[in-house]
Amino acid sequence: MIIATKISEVRAQVAAWKKEGLTVGLVPTMGYLHEGHTSLVDRAGKDCDRVVASVFVNPTQFAPGEDLETYPRDFDHDCALLEAHGCHLVFHPEVEEMYSQDAATFVEILSEMPKQLCGKTRPTHFRGVCTVVSKLFNIVTPDKAFFGQKDAQQLAVIRRMAEDLSYPVEIVGCPIVREKDGLAKSSRNTYLSETERKAALVLSKAVFLGEELAGQGERDVKQILGAMRKLIEEEPLARIDYVSAVDGVTMMPVENMQGQILFAVAVYIGKTRLIDNFIWKG
Amino acid sequence: MIIATKISEVRAQVAAWKKEGLTVGLVPTMGYLHEGHTSLVDRAGKDCDRVVASVFVNPTQFAPGEDLETYPRDFDHDCALLEAHGCHLVFHPEVEEMYSQDAATFVEILSEMPKQLCGKTRPTHFRGVCTVVSKLFNIVTPDKAFFGQKDAQQLAVIRRMAEDLSYPVEIVGCPIVREKDGLAKSSRNTYLSETERKAALVLSKAVFLGEELAGQGERDVKQILGAMRKLIEEEPLARIDYVSAVDGVTMMPVENMQGQILFAVAVYIGKTRLIDNFIWKG
Repeated sequence: MIIATKISEVRAQVAAWKKEGLTVGLVPTMGYLHEGHTSLVDRAGKDCDRVVASVFVNPTQFAPGEDLETYPRDFDHDCALLEAHGCHLVFHPEVEEMYSQDAATFVEILSEMPKQLCGKTRPTHFRGVCTVVSKLFNIVTPDKAFFGQKDAQQLAVIRRMAEDLSYPVEIVGCPIVREKDGLAKSSRNTYLSETERKAALVLSKAVFLGEELAGQGERDVKQILGAMRKLIEEEPLARIDYVSAVDGVTMMPVENMQGQILFAVAVYIGKTRLIDNFIWKG
Repeated sequence: MIIATKISEVRAQVAAWKKEGLTVGLVPTMGYLHEGHTSLVDRAGKDCDRVVASVFVNPTQFAPGEDLETYPRDFDHDCALLEAHGCHLVFHPEVEEMYSQDAATFVEILSEMPKQLCGKTRPTHFRGVCTVVSKLFNIVTPDKAFFGQKDAQQLAVIRRMAEDLSYPVEIVGCPIVREKDGLAKSSRNTYLSETERKAALVLSKAVFLGEELAGQGERDVKQILGAMRKLIEEEPLARIDYVSAVDGVTMMPVENMQGQILFAVAVYIGKTRLIDNFIWKG
Protein backbone atom coordinates (compact mmCIF):
# COMPACT_ATOMS: atom_id res chain seq x y z
CA MET A 1 0.00 0.00 0.00
CA ILE A 2 1.31 3.42 -0.99
CA ILE A 3 1.29 6.13 1.68
CA ALA A 4 1.06 9.56 0.02
CA THR A 5 1.23 12.84 1.89
CA LYS A 6 1.40 15.14 -1.15
CA ILE A 7 -1.32 15.93 -3.67
CA SER A 8 1.20 15.53 -6.50
CA GLU A 9 2.00 11.93 -5.42
CA VAL A 10 -1.68 10.99 -5.51
CA ARG A 11 -2.17 12.60 -8.92
CA ALA A 12 0.85 10.80 -10.40
CA GLN A 13 -0.24 7.38 -9.11
CA VAL A 14 -3.87 7.80 -10.18
CA ALA A 15 -2.72 9.00 -13.63
CA ALA A 16 -0.60 5.85 -13.97
CA TRP A 17 -3.59 3.68 -13.03
CA LYS A 18 -5.92 5.49 -15.43
CA LYS A 19 -3.40 5.07 -18.22
CA GLU A 20 -3.73 1.31 -17.65
CA GLY A 21 -7.51 1.68 -17.90
CA LEU A 22 -8.06 0.90 -14.22
CA THR A 23 -11.02 2.35 -12.29
CA VAL A 24 -10.50 4.13 -8.98
CA GLY A 25 -12.68 4.14 -5.85
CA LEU A 26 -12.31 6.77 -3.12
CA VAL A 27 -13.08 6.28 0.57
CA PRO A 28 -12.77 9.64 2.36
CA THR A 29 -12.23 9.26 6.12
CA MET A 30 -11.04 11.23 9.13
CA GLY A 31 -9.07 8.21 10.32
CA TYR A 32 -9.31 6.25 13.58
CA LEU A 33 -10.84 3.61 11.40
CA HIS A 34 -13.33 0.96 12.43
CA GLU A 35 -15.38 -1.73 10.68
CA GLY A 36 -17.69 0.98 9.31
CA HIS A 37 -14.80 2.41 7.33
CA THR A 38 -13.37 -0.94 6.31
CA SER A 39 -16.79 -1.97 4.98
CA LEU A 40 -16.48 1.02 2.62
CA VAL A 41 -12.98 -0.10 1.59
CA ASP A 42 -14.30 -3.63 0.99
CA ARG A 43 -17.13 -2.29 -1.16
CA ALA A 44 -14.74 -0.01 -3.07
CA GLY A 45 -12.51 -3.01 -3.75
CA LYS A 46 -15.47 -4.93 -5.17
CA ASP A 47 -16.60 -2.04 -7.38
CA CYS A 48 -13.25 -0.62 -8.53
CA ASP A 49 -9.82 -1.83 -9.66
CA ARG A 50 -7.92 0.45 -7.29
CA VAL A 51 -8.92 1.81 -3.87
CA VAL A 52 -7.74 5.15 -2.48
CA ALA A 53 -8.58 6.04 1.13
CA SER A 54 -7.96 9.48 2.58
CA VAL A 55 -7.16 9.94 6.26
CA PHE A 56 -7.55 13.63 7.05
CA VAL A 57 -9.13 15.31 10.05
CA ASN A 58 -10.60 18.21 8.09
CA PRO A 59 -10.52 21.43 10.12
CA THR A 60 -13.07 23.29 7.95
CA GLN A 61 -15.89 20.99 9.05
CA PHE A 62 -15.29 21.66 12.75
CA ALA A 63 -16.59 24.83 14.44
CA PRO A 64 -14.68 26.55 17.25
CA GLY A 65 -15.36 24.65 20.47
CA GLU A 66 -15.92 21.34 18.69
CA ASP A 67 -13.53 18.38 19.01
CA LEU A 68 -11.01 19.14 16.23
CA GLU A 69 -8.01 18.97 18.56
CA THR A 70 -9.16 15.94 20.53
CA TYR A 71 -10.54 13.97 17.58
CA PRO A 72 -8.92 10.53 17.96
CA ARG A 73 -5.98 9.71 15.69
CA ASP A 74 -3.98 6.48 15.16
CA PHE A 75 -2.48 6.50 11.68
CA ASP A 76 -0.38 3.36 12.13
CA HIS A 77 -3.44 1.35 13.09
CA ASP A 78 -5.38 2.95 10.22
CA CYS A 79 -2.69 1.86 7.76
CA ALA A 80 -2.68 -1.70 9.10
CA LEU A 81 -6.46 -1.92 8.73
CA LEU A 82 -6.48 -0.35 5.26
CA GLU A 83 -3.73 -2.64 4.01
CA ALA A 84 -5.50 -5.70 5.42
CA HIS A 85 -8.63 -4.69 3.48
CA GLY A 86 -6.79 -4.30 0.18
CA CYS A 87 -6.52 -0.52 0.00
CA HIS A 88 -3.93 0.47 -2.63
CA LEU A 89 -3.13 4.04 -1.60
CA VAL A 90 -3.75 6.06 1.53
CA PHE A 91 -3.66 9.86 1.21
CA HIS A 92 -2.66 11.40 4.53
CA PRO A 93 -1.92 15.11 3.99
CA GLU A 94 -0.94 17.75 6.50
CA VAL A 95 -3.45 20.57 6.91
CA GLU A 96 -1.04 22.91 5.06
CA GLU A 97 -1.03 20.59 2.03
CA MET A 98 -4.81 20.82 1.79
CA TYR A 99 -5.36 24.46 2.75
CA SER A 100 -2.89 27.17 1.77
CA GLN A 101 -2.73 30.26 3.95
CA ASP A 102 -4.67 32.24 1.33
CA ALA A 103 -7.30 29.59 0.68
CA ALA A 104 -10.77 31.11 0.83
CA THR A 105 -12.93 29.08 -1.56
CA PHE A 106 -15.83 27.07 -0.21
CA VAL A 107 -18.43 24.79 -1.71
CA GLU A 108 -21.78 25.28 -0.10
CA ILE A 109 -25.38 24.23 -0.58
CA LEU A 110 -27.46 27.39 -0.28
CA SER A 111 -30.79 25.73 0.47
CA GLU A 112 -32.52 24.56 3.64
CA MET A 113 -30.97 21.08 3.31
CA PRO A 114 -27.74 21.67 5.24
CA LYS A 115 -29.63 23.62 7.93
CA GLN A 116 -31.73 20.61 8.97
CA LEU A 117 -30.80 17.92 11.53
CA CYS A 118 -27.08 18.24 12.36
CA GLY A 119 -26.99 21.58 10.54
CA LYS A 120 -29.07 23.19 13.29
CA THR A 121 -26.26 22.88 15.83
CA ARG A 122 -23.43 22.71 13.26
CA PRO A 123 -24.27 25.50 10.77
CA THR A 124 -20.89 25.53 8.96
CA HIS A 125 -20.25 21.76 9.13
CA PHE A 126 -21.57 20.75 5.73
CA ARG A 127 -19.84 23.64 3.99
CA GLY A 128 -16.57 22.21 5.31
CA VAL A 129 -17.59 18.70 4.23
CA CYS A 130 -18.56 19.80 0.70
CA THR A 131 -15.35 21.76 0.34
CA VAL A 132 -13.00 18.97 1.40
CA VAL A 133 -14.89 16.33 -0.58
CA SER A 134 -14.72 18.58 -3.68
CA LYS A 135 -10.99 18.86 -3.17
CA LEU A 136 -10.60 15.10 -2.72
CA PHE A 137 -12.63 14.52 -5.89
CA ASN A 138 -10.33 16.93 -7.77
CA ILE A 139 -7.18 15.36 -6.34
CA VAL A 140 -8.11 11.68 -6.68
CA THR A 141 -10.54 11.99 -9.66
CA PRO A 142 -12.26 8.75 -8.61
CA ASP A 143 -14.88 6.91 -10.63
CA LYS A 144 -16.84 6.17 -7.45
CA ALA A 145 -16.76 7.48 -3.89
CA PHE A 146 -18.05 5.57 -0.87
CA PHE A 147 -19.80 7.04 2.16
CA GLY A 148 -21.55 5.49 5.16
CA GLN A 149 -25.31 5.71 5.64
CA LYS A 150 -24.56 6.39 9.32
CA ASP A 151 -23.85 10.01 8.38
CA ALA A 152 -27.10 10.15 6.45
CA GLN A 153 -27.30 13.91 6.06
CA GLN A 154 -23.67 14.05 4.93
CA LEU A 155 -24.45 11.41 2.29
CA ALA A 156 -27.49 13.38 1.07
CA VAL A 157 -25.51 16.62 1.01
CA ILE A 158 -22.67 15.04 -0.97
CA ARG A 159 -25.11 13.50 -3.45
CA ARG A 160 -26.68 16.96 -3.95
CA MET A 161 -23.26 18.64 -4.28
CA ALA A 162 -21.88 16.08 -6.72
CA GLU A 163 -24.97 16.29 -8.91
CA ASP A 164 -25.19 20.10 -8.81
CA LEU A 165 -21.53 20.59 -9.69
CA SER A 166 -21.58 17.82 -12.34
CA TYR A 167 -18.82 15.81 -10.69
CA PRO A 168 -18.12 12.72 -12.80
CA VAL A 169 -18.17 10.62 -9.63
CA GLU A 170 -20.77 8.02 -8.65
CA ILE A 171 -21.71 8.41 -4.98
CA VAL A 172 -22.23 5.05 -3.27
CA GLY A 173 -23.95 4.89 0.12
CA CYS A 174 -23.12 1.89 2.31
CA PRO A 175 -25.08 0.37 5.24
CA ILE A 176 -24.49 1.27 8.89
CA VAL A 177 -22.12 -1.14 10.64
CA ARG A 178 -22.94 -1.83 14.29
CA GLU A 179 -21.32 -3.28 17.37
CA LYS A 180 -22.78 -6.64 18.48
CA ASP A 181 -25.08 -4.90 20.92
CA GLY A 182 -26.39 -2.50 18.28
CA LEU A 183 -24.37 0.71 18.82
CA ALA A 184 -23.48 2.23 15.46
CA LYS A 185 -19.70 2.17 14.88
CA SER A 186 -18.18 5.63 15.26
CA SER A 187 -14.71 6.97 15.91
CA ARG A 188 -16.31 9.12 18.59
CA ASN A 189 -17.43 6.03 20.56
CA THR A 190 -13.91 6.08 21.99
CA TYR A 191 -14.89 9.18 23.97
CA LEU A 192 -17.40 7.16 26.02
CA SER A 193 -16.73 5.98 29.57
CA GLU A 194 -17.91 2.48 30.45
CA THR A 195 -21.15 3.82 31.92
CA GLU A 196 -21.71 6.10 28.96
CA ARG A 197 -21.02 3.23 26.55
CA LYS A 198 -24.00 1.37 28.08
CA ALA A 199 -26.16 4.49 28.04
CA ALA A 200 -25.27 5.07 24.36
CA LEU A 201 -27.30 1.98 23.49
CA VAL A 202 -30.44 4.15 23.63
CA LEU A 203 -29.64 5.47 20.16
CA SER A 204 -29.73 2.12 18.42
CA LYS A 205 -32.58 0.93 20.64
CA ALA A 206 -34.62 3.97 19.56
CA VAL A 207 -33.71 3.34 15.91
CA PHE A 208 -34.70 -0.34 16.15
CA LEU A 209 -37.95 0.60 17.91
CA GLY A 210 -38.84 3.14 15.21
CA GLU A 211 -38.00 0.65 12.49
CA GLU A 212 -40.15 -1.99 14.19
CA LEU A 213 -43.14 0.34 14.55
CA ALA A 214 -42.90 1.43 10.93
CA GLY A 215 -42.52 -2.23 9.89
CA GLN A 216 -45.65 -3.12 11.87
CA GLY A 217 -47.63 -0.62 9.82
CA GLU A 218 -47.59 2.49 12.01
CA ARG A 219 -48.18 5.37 9.60
CA ASP A 220 -48.22 8.26 12.04
CA VAL A 221 -44.77 9.89 11.92
CA LYS A 222 -45.40 11.64 15.24
CA GLN A 223 -46.26 8.35 16.97
CA ILE A 224 -43.00 6.79 15.79
CA LEU A 225 -40.89 9.83 16.73
CA GLY A 226 -42.70 10.08 20.08
CA ALA A 227 -41.94 6.46 20.95
CA MET A 228 -38.27 6.87 19.94
CA ARG A 229 -37.97 10.08 21.92
CA LYS A 230 -39.61 8.53 25.01
CA LEU A 231 -37.17 5.62 24.96
CA ILE A 232 -34.18 7.96 24.83
CA GLU A 233 -35.56 10.26 27.52
CA GLU A 234 -35.69 7.32 29.92
CA GLU A 235 -31.87 7.23 29.91
CA PRO A 236 -30.54 9.77 32.47
CA LEU A 237 -27.16 10.21 30.74
CA ALA A 238 -28.81 11.01 27.39
CA ARG A 239 -29.69 14.51 26.20
CA ILE A 240 -31.54 14.71 22.91
CA ASP A 241 -30.26 17.03 20.17
CA TYR A 242 -32.92 15.89 17.72
CA VAL A 243 -35.22 12.99 16.92
CA SER A 244 -36.54 13.79 13.46
CA ALA A 245 -38.19 12.43 10.34
CA VAL A 246 -37.12 14.06 7.08
CA ASP A 247 -37.41 13.38 3.37
CA GLY A 248 -34.62 10.97 2.42
CA VAL A 249 -33.41 13.17 -0.46
CA THR A 250 -34.16 16.78 0.50
CA MET A 251 -33.70 16.36 4.29
CA MET A 252 -36.81 18.53 4.84
CA PRO A 253 -39.16 17.60 7.71
CA VAL A 254 -42.03 15.30 6.77
CA GLU A 255 -45.33 14.63 8.48
CA ASN A 256 -46.67 11.80 6.35
CA MET A 257 -45.28 8.34 5.68
CA GLN A 258 -44.62 8.42 1.92
CA GLY A 259 -41.62 8.16 -0.36
CA GLN A 260 -38.33 7.60 1.40
CA ILE A 261 -38.08 8.87 4.95
CA LEU A 262 -35.00 9.23 7.08
CA PHE A 263 -35.64 8.79 10.80
CA ALA A 264 -32.58 10.28 12.45
CA VAL A 265 -31.43 10.85 16.03
CA ALA A 266 -28.62 12.89 17.53
CA VAL A 267 -28.05 12.46 21.25
CA TYR A 268 -25.46 13.69 23.69
CA ILE A 269 -24.22 10.94 25.99
CA GLY A 270 -22.38 13.01 28.55
CA LYS A 271 -20.32 15.35 26.38
CA THR A 272 -20.21 13.01 23.38
CA ARG A 273 -22.62 13.68 20.54
CA LEU A 274 -23.66 10.52 18.70
CA ILE A 275 -25.96 9.96 15.72
CA ASP A 276 -27.92 7.05 14.32
CA ASN A 277 -30.76 6.55 11.83
CA PHE A 278 -32.87 4.27 9.69
CA ILE A 279 -34.55 4.74 6.34
CA TRP A 280 -38.14 3.80 5.70
CA LYS A 281 -39.22 3.25 2.11
CA GLY A 282 -42.90 3.49 1.21
CA MET B 1 -16.57 20.35 -35.22
CA ILE B 2 -18.86 18.49 -32.83
CA ILE B 3 -21.82 20.43 -31.40
CA ALA B 4 -22.83 18.92 -28.04
CA THR B 5 -25.84 20.05 -26.04
CA LYS B 6 -25.71 17.31 -23.39
CA ILE B 7 -23.17 16.82 -20.61
CA SER B 8 -23.04 13.09 -21.41
CA GLU B 9 -21.99 13.79 -25.03
CA VAL B 10 -19.10 15.96 -23.87
CA ARG B 11 -17.97 13.36 -21.32
CA ALA B 12 -18.04 10.56 -23.93
CA GLN B 13 -16.02 12.54 -26.48
CA VAL B 14 -13.45 13.76 -23.95
CA ALA B 15 -13.09 10.21 -22.57
CA ALA B 16 -12.37 8.96 -26.10
CA TRP B 17 -9.72 11.65 -26.59
CA LYS B 18 -8.12 10.93 -23.22
CA LYS B 19 -8.01 7.24 -24.06
CA GLU B 20 -5.88 8.22 -27.07
CA GLY B 21 -3.61 10.20 -24.74
CA LEU B 22 -4.71 13.57 -26.15
CA THR B 23 -4.72 16.73 -24.02
CA VAL B 24 -7.79 18.94 -23.82
CA GLY B 25 -8.06 22.74 -23.60
CA LEU B 26 -11.24 24.48 -22.47
CA VAL B 27 -12.38 27.96 -23.54
CA PRO B 28 -15.47 28.93 -21.52
CA THR B 29 -17.54 31.67 -23.19
CA MET B 30 -20.99 33.22 -23.09
CA GLY B 31 -21.07 33.28 -26.90
CA TYR B 32 -21.45 36.22 -29.31
CA LEU B 33 -17.82 35.59 -30.00
CA HIS B 34 -15.26 38.11 -31.15
CA GLU B 35 -11.50 38.14 -31.73
CA GLY B 36 -10.92 38.16 -27.97
CA HIS B 37 -12.54 34.75 -27.73
CA THR B 38 -10.93 33.38 -30.88
CA SER B 39 -7.51 34.40 -29.55
CA LEU B 40 -8.23 32.06 -26.63
CA VAL B 41 -9.21 29.28 -29.03
CA ASP B 42 -6.03 29.87 -31.01
CA ARG B 43 -3.93 29.68 -27.86
CA ALA B 44 -5.76 26.54 -26.69
CA GLY B 45 -5.04 24.95 -30.06
CA LYS B 46 -1.35 25.71 -29.66
CA ASP B 47 -1.20 24.34 -26.11
CA CYS B 48 -3.50 21.32 -26.36
CA ASP B 49 -4.36 18.51 -28.78
CA ARG B 50 -8.11 19.12 -28.61
CA VAL B 51 -10.06 22.32 -27.99
CA VAL B 52 -13.47 22.47 -26.32
CA ALA B 53 -15.34 25.79 -26.21
CA SER B 54 -18.48 26.29 -24.21
CA VAL B 55 -21.14 28.75 -25.30
CA PHE B 56 -23.50 29.28 -22.37
CA VAL B 57 -25.04 32.49 -21.06
CA ASN B 58 -24.81 31.53 -17.41
CA PRO B 59 -27.81 32.83 -15.44
CA THR B 60 -26.19 32.43 -12.00
CA GLN B 61 -23.66 35.18 -12.72
CA PHE B 62 -26.34 37.75 -13.55
CA ALA B 63 -28.27 39.58 -10.83
CA PRO B 64 -31.92 40.57 -11.25
CA GLY B 65 -32.04 43.74 -13.36
CA GLU B 66 -28.83 42.92 -15.23
CA ASP B 67 -28.77 42.00 -18.92
CA LEU B 68 -29.33 38.23 -18.81
CA GLU B 69 -32.32 38.35 -21.17
CA THR B 70 -30.85 40.89 -23.58
CA TYR B 71 -27.27 39.49 -23.61
CA PRO B 72 -26.46 39.15 -27.34
CA ARG B 73 -26.63 35.66 -28.84
CA ASP B 74 -25.73 34.33 -32.31
CA PHE B 75 -24.88 30.66 -32.06
CA ASP B 76 -24.58 30.06 -35.82
CA HIS B 77 -22.00 32.81 -36.14
CA ASP B 78 -20.22 31.50 -33.01
CA CYS B 79 -19.99 28.03 -34.57
CA ALA B 80 -18.60 29.41 -37.82
CA LEU B 81 -15.93 31.35 -35.94
CA LEU B 82 -15.03 28.44 -33.66
CA GLU B 83 -14.76 26.00 -36.55
CA ALA B 84 -12.59 28.46 -38.51
CA HIS B 85 -10.24 28.64 -35.53
CA GLY B 86 -9.90 24.87 -35.20
CA CYS B 87 -12.18 24.24 -32.24
CA HIS B 88 -13.01 20.51 -32.02
CA LEU B 89 -16.14 20.56 -29.85
CA VAL B 90 -18.56 23.27 -28.80
CA PHE B 91 -20.68 22.64 -25.72
CA HIS B 92 -23.93 24.57 -25.96
CA PRO B 93 -26.28 23.37 -23.21
CA GLU B 94 -29.75 24.61 -22.31
CA VAL B 95 -30.04 26.17 -18.85
CA GLU B 96 -31.96 23.07 -17.68
CA GLU B 97 -29.05 20.81 -18.67
CA MET B 98 -26.70 22.83 -16.44
CA TYR B 99 -28.99 23.62 -13.53
CA SER B 100 -31.62 21.14 -12.35
CA GLN B 101 -34.66 22.53 -10.58
CA ASP B 102 -33.26 21.40 -7.22
CA ALA B 103 -29.72 22.67 -7.79
CA ALA B 104 -28.53 24.68 -4.81
CA THR B 105 -24.75 24.20 -4.63
CA PHE B 106 -22.47 27.16 -5.16
CA VAL B 107 -18.72 27.67 -5.22
CA GLU B 108 -17.77 30.91 -3.55
CA ILE B 109 -14.65 32.72 -2.41
CA LEU B 110 -15.38 33.91 1.13
CA SER B 111 -12.73 36.61 1.30
CA GLU B 112 -12.61 40.27 0.32
CA MET B 113 -11.34 39.42 -3.18
CA PRO B 114 -14.70 39.00 -4.93
CA LYS B 115 -16.07 42.09 -3.17
CA GLN B 116 -13.54 44.44 -4.80
CA LEU B 117 -13.86 46.18 -8.21
CA CYS B 118 -16.79 44.65 -10.11
CA GLY B 119 -17.89 42.84 -6.93
CA LYS B 120 -18.95 46.13 -5.37
CA THR B 121 -21.83 46.56 -7.82
CA ARG B 122 -22.18 42.85 -8.66
CA PRO B 123 -21.98 41.10 -5.26
CA THR B 124 -23.18 37.64 -6.45
CA HIS B 125 -21.45 37.74 -9.85
CA PHE B 126 -18.27 35.84 -9.00
CA ARG B 127 -20.15 33.18 -7.05
CA GLY B 128 -22.00 32.45 -10.29
CA VAL B 129 -18.76 32.49 -12.26
CA CYS B 130 -16.97 30.12 -9.86
CA THR B 131 -19.94 27.77 -9.84
CA VAL B 132 -20.31 27.49 -13.60
CA VAL B 133 -16.56 27.24 -14.17
CA SER B 134 -16.37 24.45 -11.56
CA LYS B 135 -19.13 22.64 -13.41
CA LEU B 136 -17.40 23.10 -16.75
CA PHE B 137 -14.15 21.78 -15.25
CA ASN B 138 -16.03 18.71 -13.96
CA ILE B 139 -17.81 18.15 -17.27
CA VAL B 140 -14.88 18.74 -19.66
CA THR B 141 -12.01 17.74 -17.28
CA PRO B 142 -9.59 19.88 -19.30
CA ASP B 143 -5.82 19.95 -18.84
CA LYS B 144 -5.83 23.72 -19.34
CA ALA B 145 -8.47 26.43 -19.37
CA PHE B 146 -8.11 29.79 -21.12
CA PHE B 147 -9.47 33.12 -19.92
CA GLY B 148 -9.02 36.69 -21.12
CA GLN B 149 -7.07 39.29 -19.16
CA LYS B 150 -9.83 41.75 -20.08
CA ASP B 151 -11.91 40.25 -17.25
CA ALA B 152 -8.97 40.59 -14.89
CA GLN B 153 -10.84 40.07 -11.65
CA GLN B 154 -12.60 37.02 -13.08
CA LEU B 155 -9.21 35.59 -14.03
CA ALA B 156 -7.83 36.22 -10.53
CA VAL B 157 -10.92 34.72 -8.91
CA ILE B 158 -10.75 31.60 -11.09
CA ARG B 159 -7.05 31.16 -10.34
CA ARG B 160 -7.86 31.38 -6.60
CA MET B 161 -10.77 28.98 -6.91
CA ALA B 162 -8.87 26.41 -8.98
CA GLU B 163 -5.94 26.44 -6.58
CA ASP B 164 -8.09 26.33 -3.43
CA LEU B 165 -10.22 23.44 -4.68
CA SER B 166 -7.19 21.58 -6.10
CA TYR B 167 -8.58 21.45 -9.62
CA PRO B 168 -6.10 19.61 -11.86
CA VAL B 169 -6.46 22.37 -14.44
CA GLU B 170 -3.85 24.91 -15.47
CA ILE B 171 -5.39 28.39 -15.75
CA VAL B 172 -3.97 30.35 -18.69
CA GLY B 173 -4.57 34.11 -18.91
CA CYS B 174 -4.45 35.66 -22.39
CA PRO B 175 -3.88 39.29 -23.45
CA ILE B 176 -6.66 41.79 -24.10
CA VAL B 177 -7.62 42.02 -27.77
CA ARG B 178 -8.60 45.50 -28.97
CA GLU B 179 -10.35 47.17 -31.89
CA LYS B 180 -8.07 49.17 -34.16
CA ASP B 181 -8.92 52.36 -32.28
CA GLY B 182 -8.14 50.79 -28.90
CA LEU B 183 -11.54 49.76 -27.50
CA ALA B 184 -11.23 46.40 -25.77
CA LYS B 185 -13.25 43.73 -27.60
CA SER B 186 -16.43 42.84 -25.71
CA SER B 187 -19.71 41.19 -26.62
CA ARG B 188 -21.39 44.11 -24.84
CA ASN B 189 -19.88 46.63 -27.32
CA THR B 190 -22.84 45.70 -29.50
CA TYR B 191 -25.10 47.60 -27.08
CA LEU B 192 -23.40 50.90 -27.99
CA SER B 193 -24.97 53.46 -30.33
CA GLU B 194 -22.67 55.17 -32.82
CA THR B 195 -22.19 58.14 -30.48
CA GLU B 196 -21.62 55.86 -27.49
CA ARG B 197 -19.14 53.79 -29.47
CA LYS B 198 -17.00 56.92 -29.87
CA ALA B 199 -17.43 57.90 -26.22
CA ALA B 200 -16.41 54.37 -25.14
CA LEU B 201 -12.90 55.13 -26.32
CA VAL B 202 -12.28 56.90 -23.00
CA LEU B 203 -11.76 53.52 -21.35
CA SER B 204 -8.83 52.46 -23.49
CA LYS B 205 -7.52 56.02 -23.61
CA ALA B 206 -7.48 56.10 -19.81
CA VAL B 207 -5.77 52.70 -19.72
CA PHE B 208 -3.13 53.79 -22.24
CA LEU B 209 -2.57 57.02 -20.32
CA GLY B 210 -2.10 55.17 -17.03
CA GLU B 211 0.25 52.69 -18.69
CA GLU B 212 2.25 55.55 -20.19
CA LEU B 213 2.56 57.40 -16.88
CA ALA B 214 3.66 54.25 -15.07
CA GLY B 215 6.09 53.52 -17.89
CA GLN B 216 7.52 57.01 -17.58
CA GLY B 217 8.35 56.31 -13.96
CA GLU B 218 5.37 57.79 -12.12
CA ARG B 219 5.32 55.96 -8.79
CA ASP B 220 2.37 57.69 -7.15
CA VAL B 221 -0.66 55.43 -7.57
CA LYS B 222 -3.02 58.31 -6.79
CA GLN B 223 -1.48 60.49 -9.52
CA ILE B 224 -1.97 57.75 -12.11
CA LEU B 225 -5.53 57.01 -11.03
CA GLY B 226 -6.29 60.74 -10.87
CA ALA B 227 -5.11 61.32 -14.43
CA MET B 228 -7.09 58.30 -15.69
CA ARG B 229 -10.19 59.44 -13.84
CA LYS B 230 -9.88 63.01 -15.14
CA LEU B 231 -9.65 61.79 -18.72
CA ILE B 232 -12.81 59.72 -18.33
CA GLU B 233 -14.70 62.50 -16.57
CA GLU B 234 -14.15 64.76 -19.57
CA GLU B 235 -16.47 62.53 -21.63
CA PRO B 236 -20.09 63.58 -20.99
CA LEU B 237 -21.57 60.15 -21.88
CA ALA B 238 -19.26 58.36 -19.43
CA ARG B 239 -20.18 57.61 -15.81
CA ILE B 240 -17.41 56.04 -13.71
CA ASP B 241 -18.16 52.90 -11.71
CA TYR B 242 -14.55 52.59 -10.56
CA VAL B 243 -11.00 53.56 -11.46
CA SER B 244 -8.86 51.47 -9.13
CA ALA B 245 -5.42 50.05 -8.47
CA VAL B 246 -5.34 46.66 -6.76
CA ASP B 247 -2.84 43.90 -6.07
CA GLY B 248 -2.67 41.70 -9.17
CA VAL B 249 -3.23 38.49 -7.20
CA THR B 250 -5.38 39.39 -4.19
CA MET B 251 -7.38 42.21 -5.86
CA MET B 252 -7.01 44.28 -2.67
CA PRO B 253 -6.49 48.07 -3.03
CA VAL B 254 -2.86 49.21 -3.12
CA GLU B 255 -1.30 52.59 -2.44
CA ASN B 256 2.29 51.89 -3.44
CA MET B 257 3.79 50.82 -6.74
CA GLN B 258 5.29 47.44 -5.93
CA GLY B 259 4.79 43.86 -7.03
CA GLN B 260 2.14 43.36 -9.70
CA ILE B 261 -0.60 45.95 -9.83
CA LEU B 262 -3.84 45.84 -11.75
CA PHE B 263 -5.11 49.24 -12.84
CA ALA B 264 -8.75 48.64 -13.71
CA VAL B 265 -11.65 50.78 -14.87
CA ALA B 266 -15.37 50.16 -15.13
CA VAL B 267 -17.39 52.85 -16.85
CA TYR B 268 -21.00 53.18 -17.90
CA ILE B 269 -21.34 54.55 -21.41
CA GLY B 270 -25.03 55.35 -21.44
CA LYS B 271 -26.59 52.19 -20.02
CA THR B 272 -23.72 49.92 -21.08
CA ARG B 273 -21.14 48.98 -18.47
CA LEU B 274 -17.68 48.40 -19.95
CA ILE B 275 -14.38 47.40 -18.34
CA ASP B 276 -10.71 47.68 -19.27
CA ASN B 277 -7.36 47.39 -17.49
CA PHE B 278 -3.62 47.10 -17.61
CA ILE B 279 -1.10 45.34 -15.38
CA TRP B 280 2.01 47.06 -14.10
CA LYS B 281 4.86 44.83 -12.95
CA GLY B 282 7.48 46.22 -10.58
